[in-house]
Amino acid sequence: MALSIDLNCDMGESYGAWRMGNDEGVLQYVSSANIACGFHGGDPGTMRRTVAAALARGVALGAHPSLPDLAGFGRRVMQVSPQEAYDIVVYQLGALAGVAASQGARLHHVKAHGALYNMAAKDRKLSEAICRAIRDVDASLVMYGLAGSEHVRAAAEVGLPVAQEVFGDRSYQDDGSLTPRSHPGAMIEDVDTAVAQVLRMVTEGKVRSVNGKDVPVQADTLCIHGDQPGALDFANGIRAALEKAGIAVRTTGQA
Amino acid sequence: MALSIDLNCDMGESYGAWRMGNDEGVLQYVSSANIACGFHGGDPGTMRRTVAAALARGVALGAHPSLPDLAGFGRRVMQVSPQEAYDIVVYQLGALAGVAASQGARLHHVKAHGALYNMAAKDRKLSEAICRAIRDVDASLVMYGLAGSEHVRAAAEVGLPVAQEVFGDRSYQDDGSLTPRSHPGAMIEDVDTAVAQVLRMVTEGKVRSVNGKDVPVQADTLCIHGDQPGALDFANGIRAALEKAGIAVRTTGQA
Amino acid sequence: MALSIDLNCDMGESYGAWRMGNDEGVLQYVSSANIACGFHGGDPGTMRRTVAAALARGVALGAHPSLPDLAGFGRRVMQVSPQEAYDIVVYQLGALAGVAASQGARLHHVKAHGALYNMAAKDRKLSEAICRAIRDVDASLVMYGLAGSEHVRAAAEVGLPVAQEVFGDRSYQDDGSLTPRSHPGAMIEDVDTAVAQVLRMVTEGKVRSVNGKDVPVQADTLCIHGDQPGALDFANGIRAALEKAGIAVRTTGQA
Amino acid sequence: MALSIDLNCDMGESYGAWRMGNDEGVLQYVSSANIACGFHGGDPGTMRRTVAAALARGVALGAHPSLPDLAGFGRRVMQVSPQEAYDIVVYQLGALAGVAASQGARLHHVKAHGALYNMAAKDRKLSEAICRAIRDVDASLVMYGLAGSEHVRAAAEVGLPVAQEVFGDRSYQDDGSLTPRSHPGAMIEDVDTAVAQVLRMVTEGKVRSVNGKDVPVQADTLCIHGDQPGALDFANGIRAALEKAGIAVRTTGQA
Repeated sequence: MALSIDLNCDMGESYGAWRMGNDEGVLQYVSSANIACGFHGGDPGTMRRTVAAALARGVALGAHPSLPDLAGFGRRVMQVSPQEAYDIVVYQLGALAGVAASQGARLHHVKAHGALYNMAAKDRKLSEAICRAIRDVDASLVMYGLAGSEHVRAAAEVGLPVAQEVFGDRSYQDDGSLTPRSHPGAMIEDVDTAVAQVLRMVTEGKVRSVNGKDVPVQADTLCIHGDQPGALDFANGIRAALEKAGIAVRTTGQA
Repeated sequence: MALSIDLNCDMGESYGAWRMGNDEGVLQYVSSANIACGFHGGDPGTMRRTVAAALARGVALGAHPSLPDLAGFGRRVMQVSPQEAYDIVVYQLGALAGVAASQGARLHHVKAHGALYNMAAKDRKLSEAICRAIRDVDASLVMYGLAGSEHVRAAAEVGLPVAQEVFGDRSYQDDGSLTPRSHPGAMIEDVDTAVAQVLRMVTEGKVRSVNGKDVPVQADTLCIHGDQPGALDFANGIRAALEKAGIAVRTTGQA
Repeated sequence: MALSIDLNCDMGESYGAWRMGNDEGVLQYVSSANIACGFHGGDPGTMRRTVAAALARGVALGAHPSLPDLAGFGRRVMQVSPQEAYDIVVYQLGALAGVAASQGARLHHVKAHGALYNMAAKDRKLSEAICRAIRDVDASLVMYGLAGSEHVRAAAEVGLPVAQEVFGDRSYQDDGSLTPRSHPGAMIEDVDTAVAQVLRMVTEGKVRSVNGKDVPVQADTLCIHGDQPGALDFANGIRAALEKAGIAVRTTGQA
Repeated sequence: MALSIDLNCDMGESYGAWRMGNDEGVLQYVSSANIACGFHGGDPGTMRRTVAAALARGVALGAHPSLPDLAGFGRRVMQVSPQEAYDIVVYQLGALAGVAASQGARLHHVKAHGALYNMAAKDRKLSEAICRAIRDVDASLVMYGLAGSEHVRAAAEVGLPVAQEVFGDRSYQDDGSLTPRSHPGAMIEDVDTAVAQVLRMVTEGKVRSVNGKDVPVQADTLCIHGDQPGALDFANGIRAALEKAGIAVRTTGQA
């Protein structure tokens, strides 16, 4: 079977009168869109426009639920209970599913945003609550989580389809976790290095850690950042390299 | 065919640490629940609990979308465009449908809240936008609107099932509209008078206006207020009177 | 006495992770800053940074209170009572005064934002409530309102210092009101025409209406828009023209 | 000098259409009111009414700032930076000071709410940021913090007047900290036991820990809970016992 990978990007994170990101630009390159649902960004009108733009490009629709923290863009850790996490995921998932339904479409996946994503990667009870929320609303939705994390294990246990997410622009630790942003060498800014890391993850299932150790990793979907300088260059570069290597870009669960 | 009427009540309007209404009490009497969706009241946890309580009683689930005005409880008129109204209804409808789905249930109807309800009763463009939002998400949902209003006409035009709503505790004008609350005689506080008005609306399709004129009215569903003193007495009284008169209490669209 | 005019601009309207406007750029040209207070834009951190930037430039600090409508950027008319308007102005005014105090500074003026500004221009009860709120917090604050409006008359009656605001990039009606934006000819896009209108308002106290009629107008302060394309060009152009005409640019109430 | 203690209570925590607490009832017993500022509860109208009620009773006005978490009532730990804590305290303090000023009054103290209070008790950097915020707005404000905590030490270092807060209805650990609510024996429900604990803290400066050890404690102000069943009974009981023991009830900093 031919190799393939999904490229996903967060989008629809504008809010009211404020613009964020370059959704139209990045939609040319990705196969999956993680659409903000109003808790860290996004509003009902932005959600409608983002769903329409993704559908026009044939990009798969995903919900991008967050902690309830508009002022902090969902990036601040909040001590929510598993039940609270369950409830906010059901709500946001439903809201975006409603927007999709109003345009005759369905959701394909869910990826938690910001602090919720990071918390779920490490906290099994929290990630189980998130996965149950997704399954209870629609058991066919694919759960996107950090490759090798508790979140991915929780999804498997709950019985959800999973896509393990990898990063081209972040370095890895020996245990397969991402180097925290506060550490030197956390970010990979050279496009060629990033592309090479992605190709190896897809073709060999391995990534070289910051300590030079080969670490196994399952690369189902690659995170593309849309709101940073040089984002489109990276997206373009990775897409060209994947094509050259004969690796198809397509969303998870599609033949 | 035997006469019947639906009894509906707004509920799930608590928010976070704050309680409102007596949902458990009123669920004993009604056949349809209009559940707040987070914009004027309600939060993801309250929505979950309210859906569960309604399902436990066999009460039909309805969305109760509002203008985005938590501080004003959705009671303040806001100049939203038809597109904005469309978007906020899709969002709230979807969110509650998600909560219902997570409990294996589906929504049955939609009733706009507060200022949005009153604005839609008079403004055809606004009510059309609301009705298109409902239809685009789920064309089987029943639209609850003020009997004889623009909202009801818009629903018919858009092709939505409609339930015309009447009031036992409000007096009517010659044109079939409700007497504004600011006018003397707007409220009917005597339970017997209210019950008599409801019985006549159901059996004869007429209501006596404040000026003594008989006005035709279609009574598909009756609004029960849950958060006022004496609310349960009124609910109990109306329910007993309906049973005595051989009028079945059941939600719309059910045999 | 030499002629002078104040140049004011709305700023500090970023929110959380979202940026808006070009505050640093426009601060070079204006003498008064109207700083958002969190209800339509602005957040505690943005308010701190904006106050610091204005102080660094010697620009007078003003509060820019709004209706509570973050999603609508305070541009949607909401039916608030005079008491509600009073309360939200006191709150926002106090919040910004706290930020100013934390930097050893005091507020100089207040200008209502968006829909609240427009509503207050026409509604005497509402504008009186706003003016009483300002006076009750600090009777030395200058109230900025549309020249010739009810808001300006209310301020005088309440005993507040007033600055009448004029526009260079908007055309006027025969009664001295602004041509609504929905009408053709509402906006003056040619910089020279706008500059000429401003100069005549300052030097002659008159403006030529869209119907060619000369209308008296008191030009205490000129609105500079910071967030539109060409905004800095207009600010630069008007500033140069004023200097050439010997008209000083300084905030109201200063010798 | 005669012994005295301050009795303080959180209040003004209603929001919009939702009621909370029994402010009028508890105002009869306390000498200091901690008034919510809109981030966990309270809204501009509620703040106005609460300030007026406290002034009518001669009760000292205090700000009760919170993390920005209306849905969670400020009870959920959020990872805010010291700068963010500084900014939100300045904002909320200013807002309530504005309300007080509009009624010719000034603030007397500040007590952080919920999770912010608990976080500040343990986190020196956070508590320093909060104390600097208070001092920068008004250096005469008294900082209320958990007796013996980092928050109290930070206030002293920053140069703020401090009131150390003790609890009658909570048991203490050997190190002078409160027994966490999740532990058995955390709450003291017997009024007589609670009253005895308070009297000993005031007269001897000691509290018996759950392990039977005497721990030194400085009791400047006692927390009265207003929103719990039996709250008024406890307030009444403690007040009577203090009077009987010749201990004056008065706010901090008054002769």
